[in-house]
Amino acid sequence: MRMYDIIEKKREGHELTKEEIDFFVKGYTDGKIPDYQVSALLMAIFFRKMNKRETVDLTKAMLNSGETIDLSAIKGIKVDKHSTGGVGDKTTLVLGPMVAACGLPVAKMSGRGLGHTGGTLDKLESIKNFKIALKREDFIGNVNNINLAVCSQTANIAPADKKLYALRDVTATVDNTSLIASSVMSKKLASGSNAIVLDVKVGSGAFMKNLDDAFLLAEEMVDIGNSMDRNTVAVLSNMNEPLGYAVGNAIEVKEAIETLQNRGPKDLVELCLTLGSRLLLLGNIVDNIEEGRKMLVEVIENGKAYEKLLEFVEAQGGDVEYVKNPELLPKAEHIIEVESEKEGYITSINAEKVGKCALSLGAGRETKDSILDLSAGIILNKKVGDKVNKGDVLAYIHSNDINTGEKVSFSLKKIIDVKANNDKKPKLIYGIVDNKGVKRL
Amino acid sequence: MRMYDIIEKKREGHELTKEEIDFFVKGYTDGKIPDYQVSALLMAIFFRKMNKRETVDLTKAMLNSGETIDLSAIKGIKVDKHSTGGVGDKTTLVLGPMVAACGLPVAKMSGRGLGHTGGTLDKLESIKNFKIALKREDFIGNVNNINLAVCSQTANIAPADKKLYALRDVTATVDNTSLIASSVMSKKLASGSNAIVLDVKVGSGAFMKNLDDAFLLAEEMVDIGNSMDRNTVAVLSNMNEPLGYAVGNAIEVKEAIETLQNRGPKDLVELCLTLGSRLLLLGNIVDNIEEGRKMLVEVIENGKAYEKLLEFVEAQGGDVEYVKNPELLPKAEHIIEVESEKEGYITSINAEKVGKCALSLGAGRETKDSILDLSAGIILNKKVGDKVNKGDVLAYIHSNDINTGEKVSFSLKKIIDVKANNDKKPKLIYGIVDNKGVKRL
Repeated sequence: MRMYDIIEKKREGHELTKEEIDFFVKGYTDGKIPDYQVSALLMAIFFRKMNKRETVDLTKAMLNSGETIDLSAIKGIKVDKHSTGGVGDKTTLVLGPMVAACGLPVAKMSGRGLGHTGGTLDKLESIKNFKIALKREDFIGNVNNINLAVCSQTANIAPADKKLYALRDVTATVDNTSLIASSVMSKKLASGSNAIVLDVKVGSGAFMKNLDDAFLLAEEMVDIGNSMDRNTVAVLSNMNEPLGYAVGNAIEVKEAIETLQNRGPKDLVELCLTLGSRLLLLGNIVDNIEEGRKMLVEVIENGKAYEKLLEFVEAQGGDVEYVKNPELLPKAEHIIEVESEKEGYITSINAEKVGKCALSLGAGRETKDSILDLSAGIILNKKVGDKVNKGDVLAYIHSNDINTGEKVSFSLKKIIDVKANNDKKPKLIYGIVDNKGVKRL
Repeated sequence: MRMYDIIEKKREGHELTKEEIDFFVKGYTDGKIPDYQVSALLMAIFFRKMNKRETVDLTKAMLNSGETIDLSAIKGIKVDKHSTGGVGDKTTLVLGPMVAACGLPVAKMSGRGLGHTGGTLDKLESIKNFKIALKREDFIGNVNNINLAVCSQTANIAPADKKLYALRDVTATVDNTSLIASSVMSKKLASGSNAIVLDVKVGSGAFMKNLDDAFLLAEEMVDIGNSMDRNTVAVLSNMNEPLGYAVGNAIEVKEAIETLQNRGPKDLVELCLTLGSRLLLLGNIVDNIEEGRKMLVEVIENGKAYEKLLEFVEAQGGDVEYVKNPELLPKAEHIIEVESEKEGYITSINAEKVGKCALSLGAGRETKDSILDLSAGIILNKKVGDKVNKGDVLAYIHSNDINTGEKVSFSLKKIIDVKANNDKKPKLIYGIVDNKGVKRL
């Protein structure tokens, strides 16, 4: 078998066999096939696409290129949630305690962030002494004891995907549904869970800007998951404006705490109920979605979800006083108010641009080696559809550098659109894709 | 400017600017842009194509990546002939003396061969003491004295093309008209000639297998040449069966000598008259094609072309006795006759397969470092359309290894098709492309 022939075959629009896919993934991972041949193949795949069978085989090949996590020591059905990434996305911080409080074991391996804000692990480190590196036995033990543990990934998961992703990133071959779906799923399938809920974000602040493309991606990922015997469901959610109000690290933790105290932003709560009810259903905790929603609302209202957060922070060595009194969390020196210059309705808050503002404040990493400012970020004071008067505060900028803060203030005024007439309130959930098919809402 | 953006732009089907093309060609030649980004761009070009303007700019960028030859010290209009490569193609050896005898200066830089047989330089080295490395002043001096010199290329011509071609060769991105045309023309335009005649071969033994593709390629090359003020003409010729009878090195020299002695194969003579008359017209030696053909027939019949060959060999230090008595040329130990097993007509002699047979005998180079056997090769005894009886000799195999010779004999019997009914005699010249347009014959 020769890589040249595989490139030519795909270039001519033919279907690659499992053997050919395994050959190039293994050869590339082992360093036997050079970058320049793989990038030519990736571009040919971009133009000719891969069918369902090829996509599943590519996923398997990448999954098999590295280690997989064994969660069999954890009792019950393990369900994983994965977001394709958005701005202000603190869902895991809220959803973890919620579903754990309902009795579903949550054993989450998480990552650092690259881009607009930190990742879940970065956010959790806003809490004093919180340990994100857990020994395997402690990780398993915590899940068995309190249903919840979140720790950093140390295993060598899907190294083929890491190498391929890095190459796609510099050769303009990222935007292909099969390549995206197999990249996400090869990592998720290695995580040891029995079922998967995917939060596919759509909109300005998401990877998928277009609803039709997002549905296609969701279908591909659900197909891959189900074809490998993991019950997989995708929820398509709006990422045109940031999720909730806070975009940063410590300030997102504070918003997550408030949400678990039943004082959360409407969109974040609704998303957590939508995703959480599906997690509970897949985990056999409830018999239907409605029952799941009811149970989740209950654990928020009766304080059990908030108590689960306290247990979780304590179990991982964190100082629970930081949860009880979020004023202890890292705080920025300056808080700059961004005021509206006119009266009207908020019609748009471009999530991608808000994310870039947060990044410039230090809330995110420009490169892998950037140092985060956990206190920095933006707290919106209004959401799309809200009425504003002239002089009303649109957002608060948290910054340790007054000049950068002022610059961001100037940018934010242009990002937050205020118009005389109110548009229709945008949808939060666009649809669901599961083994029964596609349901647009 | 970023290479990523250039890849993405072409991927989306947009036209690249001159600046973008210059950026990637220069960056790649200088080693600042990596192979893997260039191969992704090449595959995007394969799918999205380049328009005429882009192709011309790519050619200029590759031309400008290296040195160009200055032939201004040679009097008169310098005309170059280039073949896209075929089997048994000894045209330069015949055409050079023919047009030089008509008064047209021929200053030819040539190369070694890679593939089925050696190149023009290899073939000339069959003549004892023939020097292919000439000092610049001797090269120019010989052309000014006798109108003819052929020497090896030492200048650093179009290094960008060398690097790009090597990459295309391993990434399945060779088959694109713009990339092929710009590759050929960047080298031709560097050769210092004022006008160019291209011999575009079409058929089994040629790079272009398909007539429509060959016409498109010819048009692109003629457009490039003319857009850079070199009067350029392309002749499309048949390469389904080998040109002439001999396929090798010394045996091709012998056939070239015989042709100049007015005893040449019909197809080779006709091709030389077609190409040569266009060379004479572009060089202002004659006023029209017919006059050119007449003059060329004359120099063959009156011996002036043959005398020019003798002058040429002598001027480059070669032993003219080898021309006068070709029996002195390198000779193989074994000559194996391939006999026809049936009666009928020759309907096909696949040139590519004959070329591979010659290669296996040692007449060509498998890799750059292979050592040629100048005496080895195949001399056909019949051509397509000829009648044969059972037992008639179809070809003679010249080999220094009896076993390889026998193997080739076995193969050749299958390659030379003998059928009961005669097909229509194939065309030799398919058409002409010049600044007036495409003329299919």
